[in-house]
Amino acid sequence: MKVKDEQKYDRLLQAAVHVLATVGLAGFSTTKVAKQAGIPQSNLYIYFKNKQALLLAVFRLAVHAESVAATASLKTEMAVIDQLTASIQGIYRFALDQPEFVTVIQLLLDDGQLKAKLSMKANDPANQQIQRLLRTGVERQILRSVDLNFHRYFLTRPVFHFAQGVRAGLYADTPAELATVTTMIMAAVLQPAVYQEWVRIK
Amino acid sequence: MKVKDEQKYDRLLQAAVHVLATVGLAGFSTTKVAKQAGIPQSNLYIYFKNKQALLLAVFRLAVHAESVAATASLKTEMAVIDQLTASIQGIYRFALDQPEFVTVIQLLLDDGQLKAKLSMKANDPANQQIQRLLRTGVERQILRSVDLNFHRYFLTRPVFHFAQGVRAGLYADTPAELATVTTMIMAAVLQPAVYQEWVRIK
Repeated sequence: MKVKDEQKYDRLLQAAVHVLATVGLAGFSTTKVAKQAGIPQSNLYIYFKNKQALLLAVFRLAVHAESVAATASLKTEMAVIDQLTASIQGIYRFALDQPEFVTVIQLLLDDGQLKAKLSMKANDPANQQIQRLLRTGVERQILRSVDLNFHRYFLTRPVFHFAQGVRAGLYADTPAELATVTTMIMAAVLQPAVYQEWVRIK
Repeated sequence: MKVKDEQKYDRLLQAAVHVLATVGLAGFSTTKVAKQAGIPQSNLYIYFKNKQALLLAVFRLAVHAESVAATASLKTEMAVIDQLTASIQGIYRFALDQPEFVTVIQLLLDDGQLKAKLSMKANDPANQQIQRLLRTGVERQILRSVDLNFHRYFLTRPVFHFAQGVRAGLYADTPAELATVTTMIMAAVLQPAVYQEWVRIK
């Protein structure tokens, strides 16, 4: 794409995130996205074949942003457990700062029919880094030997819930509260013996 | 209310659950609910003052149904831990059988602004039973000493996720998979020493 085209593509994508977060899946339409972006609807189809393609692009953008936030402070020389807790902190900041991305991730993943059609590009490095971290964690018997989807769920969604609660005034935005959530998540995902050792030394 | 009125009230409420689950919060309107129920919109306001009152009634109905399912097989003489695992199984069956209720519970609780305005009636016995179980669990140092909202979250939402995944073909509907999810949840909510003992003897 030419530079000008890339700008329009990005503008449409940002508009799509905002529309989806605001009106939800049932109300989402290319008409609304084009209007929000200030671009004729006929032009939208140059960039996105149809509504489904636009939703896939939104999903990939949002999960990419989440993965970048989750991996921002990770270093490969860090222990797996430290990488997991650092990713929780990254996801927490992300969920506070980017509530629209969080809303669209939840909407798209909670829709069973849609979820089956959504996939990340194999070349998304931040997302790949998370997948690798989880696989390594299971191989080294740090994480429980369960479906990686369970690990992704427990490492992400309670953090979204906590951030939404903080934004709504239900929970306090304190390190102690985040530590409580982190401890509950780690108990869920770590092998029990690894969790006990982690609690003992932290 | 007279019997006839109760029937209309129930019909409107069922219609509201269906409309909310289908079109989401942004698309939800009393117009659509009245149309779905086949009742003139002006009549709807006899039963529900406004949209907000209707959403509150939907929330209470859905959480009541969830609480009834969660407590259906509990007996007060059962150990707290056994009551917790039985409630997970009840919530799992509920989530498989009543996906629209699950969708509306998620929609309403994930909306921070709305959540602050939602509350259960003090006289909902099934919901009170769950609250009492959680308070007792914390008092007896079986559950972690954390905000009860965290316990409610971990004991419910991963079960919803699992049921949605089963419906979408992502997870297998087997006792072993449900046991995996249950174990992760119990690790998150139980005091570590209690969890270890539970794993040892189960």
